[in-house]
Amino acid sequence: MSSTFGQVFRITTWGESHGGGVGVVLDGCPPGLEISAKDIQIELDRRKPGQSKITTQRKEEDQVEIHSGLFEGQTLGTPISMMVWNQDARSKDYEEIRTKYRPSHADYTYQQKYGIRNWKGGGRSSARETIGRVAAGAVARKLLKRDCNIDIIAYVRQVHTLIANVDPLTVTRDQVEANIARVPEPKIAEQIIQRIDAARKDGDSLGGVVEAVAHNVPPGWGEPIFDKLEADLAKSMLSLPACKGFESGSGFGGITMTGTAHNDPFYNEGDGIHTRTNYSGGIQGGISNGEPIIIRAAFKPTATILIEQDTVDTDGNPTTLKGRGRHDPCVLPRAIPIVEAMMALVLADHYLRQRGQRG
Amino acid sequence: MSSTFGQVFRITTWGESHGGGVGVVLDGCPPGLEISAKDIQIELDRRKPGQSKITTQRKEEDQVEIHSGLFEGQTLGTPISMMVWNQDARSKDYEEIRTKYRPSHADYTYQQKYGIRNWKGGGRSSARETIGRVAAGAVARKLLKRDCNIDIIAYVRQVHTLIANVDPLTVTRDQVEANIARVPEPKIAEQIIQRIDAARKDGDSLGGVVEAVAHNVPPGWGEPIFDKLEADLAKSMLSLPACKGFESGSGFGGITMTGTAHNDPFYNEGDGIHTRTNYSGGIQGGISNGEPIIIRAAFKPTATILIEQDTVDTDGNPTTLKGRGRHDPCVLPRAIPIVEAMMALVLADHYLRQRGQRG
Amino acid sequence: MSSTFGQVFRITTWGESHGGGVGVVLDGCPPGLEISAKDIQIELDRRKPGQSKITTQRKEEDQVEIHSGLFEGQTLGTPISMMVWNQDARSKDYEEIRTKYRPSHADYTYQQKYGIRNWKGGGRSSARETIGRVAAGAVARKLLKRDCNIDIIAYVRQVHTLIANVDPLTVTRDQVEANIARVPEPKIAEQIIQRIDAARKDGDSLGGVVEAVAHNVPPGWGEPIFDKLEADLAKSMLSLPACKGFESGSGFGGITMTGTAHNDPFYNEGDGIHTRTNYSGGIQGGISNGEPIIIRAAFKPTATILIEQDTVDTDGNPTTLKGRGRHDPCVLPRAIPIVEAMMALVLADHYLRQRGQRG
Amino acid sequence: MSSTFGQVFRITTWGESHGGGVGVVLDGCPPGLEISAKDIQIELDRRKPGQSKITTQRKEEDQVEIHSGLFEGQTLGTPISMMVWNQDARSKDYEEIRTKYRPSHADYTYQQKYGIRNWKGGGRSSARETIGRVAAGAVARKLLKRDCNIDIIAYVRQVHTLIANVDPLTVTRDQVEANIARVPEPKIAEQIIQRIDAARKDGDSLGGVVEAVAHNVPPGWGEPIFDKLEADLAKSMLSLPACKGFESGSGFGGITMTGTAHNDPFYNEGDGIHTRTNYSGGIQGGISNGEPIIIRAAFKPTATILIEQDTVDTDGNPTTLKGRGRHDPCVLPRAIPIVEAMMALVLADHYLRQRGQRG
Repeated sequence: MSSTFGQVFRITTWGESHGGGVGVVLDGCPPGLEISAKDIQIELDRRKPGQSKITTQRKEEDQVEIHSGLFEGQTLGTPISMMVWNQDARSKDYEEIRTKYRPSHADYTYQQKYGIRNWKGGGRSSARETIGRVAAGAVARKLLKRDCNIDIIAYVRQVHTLIANVDPLTVTRDQVEANIARVPEPKIAEQIIQRIDAARKDGDSLGGVVEAVAHNVPPGWGEPIFDKLEADLAKSMLSLPACKGFESGSGFGGITMTGTAHNDPFYNEGDGIHTRTNYSGGIQGGISNGEPIIIRAAFKPTATILIEQDTVDTDGNPTTLKGRGRHDPCVLPRAIPIVEAMMALVLADHYLRQRGQRG
Repeated sequence: MSSTFGQVFRITTWGESHGGGVGVVLDGCPPGLEISAKDIQIELDRRKPGQSKITTQRKEEDQVEIHSGLFEGQTLGTPISMMVWNQDARSKDYEEIRTKYRPSHADYTYQQKYGIRNWKGGGRSSARETIGRVAAGAVARKLLKRDCNIDIIAYVRQVHTLIANVDPLTVTRDQVEANIARVPEPKIAEQIIQRIDAARKDGDSLGGVVEAVAHNVPPGWGEPIFDKLEADLAKSMLSLPACKGFESGSGFGGITMTGTAHNDPFYNEGDGIHTRTNYSGGIQGGISNGEPIIIRAAFKPTATILIEQDTVDTDGNPTTLKGRGRHDPCVLPRAIPIVEAMMALVLADHYLRQRGQRG
Repeated sequence: MSSTFGQVFRITTWGESHGGGVGVVLDGCPPGLEISAKDIQIELDRRKPGQSKITTQRKEEDQVEIHSGLFEGQTLGTPISMMVWNQDARSKDYEEIRTKYRPSHADYTYQQKYGIRNWKGGGRSSARETIGRVAAGAVARKLLKRDCNIDIIAYVRQVHTLIANVDPLTVTRDQVEANIARVPEPKIAEQIIQRIDAARKDGDSLGGVVEAVAHNVPPGWGEPIFDKLEADLAKSMLSLPACKGFESGSGFGGITMTGTAHNDPFYNEGDGIHTRTNYSGGIQGGISNGEPIIIRAAFKPTATILIEQDTVDTDGNPTTLKGRGRHDPCVLPRAIPIVEAMMALVLADHYLRQRGQRG
Repeated sequence: MSSTFGQVFRITTWGESHGGGVGVVLDGCPPGLEISAKDIQIELDRRKPGQSKITTQRKEEDQVEIHSGLFEGQTLGTPISMMVWNQDARSKDYEEIRTKYRPSHADYTYQQKYGIRNWKGGGRSSARETIGRVAAGAVARKLLKRDCNIDIIAYVRQVHTLIANVDPLTVTRDQVEANIARVPEPKIAEQIIQRIDAARKDGDSLGGVVEAVAHNVPPGWGEPIFDKLEADLAKSMLSLPACKGFESGSGFGGITMTGTAHNDPFYNEGDGIHTRTNYSGGIQGGISNGEPIIIRAAFKPTATILIEQDTVDTDGNPTTLKGRGRHDPCVLPRAIPIVEAMMALVLADHYLRQRGQRG
């Protein structure tokens, strides 16, 4: 059940990076939603490899196929099965890791967990699995837009030590897509591109922070106690490859404030109840309060580097390993559609849950 | 279902802060585990109010009652129902919030969500709900200790701008319990106590960071994709009142490193495979690798402050509100047993899940 | 998780027959529903022991306590915790079964499953567990009545070889409650009462069939594939102690018909679409069609008899056992409120699920 | 979530009868199990249309494709995605039902539930969905055989008024497969084949009873209260198209016995504890007792008949409809591998659940 996410708007992903394909089954989608392969493909294209000089140079077209759940262009309310075939597998790139554990990858832990692993390209631990999330997230996004006018925008906020100055309340998707780094501040974007490119040439890798905002989420979504909106968003982010941290609203930064400064005063100037500040990030007591929902996720430097490292082989003997193949020196730019998809999936699920309990 | 946590070792909590009591039903615990009310009470006593000058001065004895699931001192394998009666309710302290929304509390969002709320003391959003978690966590802790020799230790790492220097690999529970701040560095502990006390006198509040470590978790726990160990730990922390951030291993700090520095090289000096560094925090690909699991959770400054603030009333009209009652100026010291409980619950669940799939 | 039922309107029961009490936590109930202890108690009183000469003579008042989830007489939308204390425990009645397995009881299987069992009164396998179901079912019933005008009526259709002639479309609760057997045909009711009484005097026991009907269920409830309305109803019935069979609509009787006779023709006389016959029992393709939902559940003869039987002791040695204590010679009359409760719980869950997906 | 079944060994099926294909994702399977496409295909071939003169004459090869979860012939422990492409779609056969509701089919209820339906061949309500169950069931069966030597055998026990005399304890799969009716009593099998063939010629249809037995299930499987083995088996059967009834052990037949006759006395002749009779059907208190598990499922006469019937059109106006296309006059023979698959899925899930809690 570890490949299933969501309670009511629920996805199950499947697939390894090499052999067959990867896909998703989305169950619980409301009927009558207009969906086309094109809606899905737009998001997959933002995720796919080889889209710029700072991403992996693997060539995978990642064309989605939809096998069920649609009829005459609309959702039926039944499971939507979508998949992408694997291709361009250069498994000789992986021959060495058949017998050596890559540091900070999942090779060793999968082997310990299952006693078997698909060593070709990381198998199930490959970021290729996120294709299914992005495909399902595109459906969630359409539902949220149609029913609630919700917009979700994610962008690269920081890479290594370079931090972009972005106003989450006004940033647009066009600004995000304006450069290959998906950093909506042109000047720092250029520096980030250069730094990623430098890391790539060094065979090294970089991490960073993605920030995401959801506009127009109505108050009342999120379930008290364990399924707080923040709790499910945190889980959704930490379920992503390479993610090591999550913040909502003020996050770690808020701890150096006092309560007086940190509390968000309510006001009403005739257009409903709002808060003057938004340190809560749009969520109070785990429930949306109508303000923009703002979260951040930290991604570690990519584990695959083209520099020789100490490790052990599958017999436990010391050895060294130098990464090969075509990898992302920094996952952040391609992580943007994935973060958006996960946020959309969490919100769609809580939308339907709230509608179920309240009507 | 929002009050249920865990897949196999599963808890359901219930209760508001005023009226009746609060409790938990723990289902799925292995049979034959020796448990007494005393095991539970030890942890509840670490959580209870009034335990020191820097916590709320409410007096609640919080004596646990166990109503099912035990027989002759052992678990039966059937649901364990535990509860604590509410007492010491001074609901006059809350009369004002009947008609005014406390800033950065859950009053407004609960009202929006449900169209009704128990305004006496925060109702379900009260931290009193965590009693059930701590009670069930005490059972999880005993199971993990008996079967795997796992030790879980949490402590206050930071309050406001004061950061303790602690080695997570060697810190002991005695060191944590040695002072009322639960900061296992005596000198900084004293400063933290003074700062919390000063905030209390000012009617203000402070936030901070809790760090937790789990020793002896065997490799192979945690489920790929959505139920990664980090994902479930993140969810467990963000489900706590006032928590706004989560990190695993290097977390947000790791993003200014490069992959070369951040990767944890494997080695084997004859006693099994280990990593030289532990930036992964004991988790790779969402699965434990046998190293200590290290996480951090950020808690915002307590929303209840005794200083007048702008807000609106339940009719949407501007007003002001000054907190009353007896509240914690900083939740961190009392959060320690709660963080430990959540970590134990996540690990116990994944222990049984792994045993189910692998045998 | 085996003590949890329902996806959205979800209950978790707990408790053994001796020691502490038994109870239920109901999560997911819509807020704003008026509920009082009296609503619950009415149903518990129909279930309680000692209510007539043909039920067990144990005296248990089974007074419900509600510990959470209500505020000023209304549901809060948060978990409703309800319980009943155990009393009147004559554990000496059970001393013998400490070391002997009662035939066709759960003593042996619990011991095999858990390696431990509460031998006092059957522990968790006791029908006393159903108190929690009946309490939660009373809430479900109120919700269904308020929102959809749904009425649920169950009654004893058959005991041993005696079959009542009842029209499920017109039978009333008053007719059911008119006699202690809960057989809504007076003449056969009298015979059934005599036969149960005779079995009681013989120390023997009888089984039978309960039939239940739900009126006014709107079309569209029930989820295709695994959570068909019939599938969840079947599970709910087979989860009851002593239940060994389930039918929906024509059930086993329908197999001697041909399709021509069995199909339910649609018609519309201006008041909407209906079916001429109702062999489908109000469910087609697992989804309600607007006709009355009709099901039946078979209950075996009570396993506890006061006649000496062959068995083995806990060391595996042959021995004999003669039941003692005060037991029901026939569970059917007291099963009526339990069957109604389970039907209400299934329908309430599917009501909210449908509302979630469709709005 | 209505297309997901199982807690730990969990399947999610997808697909409509026309367009794309049908498939299943199996999550939670233990790693290291040898599986080939051939293992799956053997079971699918028993289910496929056109296999004899008494089944539908549709020609579908139903060749399974496995897209993930296997590596070098073994399960990886990750999701196994399997599918079959749809073919041979003669949608003109369905043109009439675009605007007319077939009696006792799911056309009307799907339309009411979703406001949209795939009218080509029944869409999601088609029995074609069971392909996914059979494919996953084949994996469950291999697991149960390898680890516990469990054998599962189902067979047609009754068609219309013709009842076969079969000893569930000794019947073999070869006997079942010896004739196209899958009735393991040659003489009655011949009569059943003739009666089904006669119904086919009349354009009419027949129902019947499938009986299934599982050998070598160890004691202790099944979870008390809601996930009793009988409850999950009942749900699994009632989730099948056309199933209207379920029995375990003595079932409905047991109610005319008294407790004295119905109880299964324990004995031990040195080879462990057994019961003299098996009216319990191998399950007591919802938990397996080590005896053969015996269940029965009732299937109604196929709703599709080639005889004119009264119905209404999608505007609610009276009309008539005469079935067309190629359908099974009796689903029983092809239901055998499906019933076996569901039984295997339930047992595999409970096997892993018991292993998780007990180790």
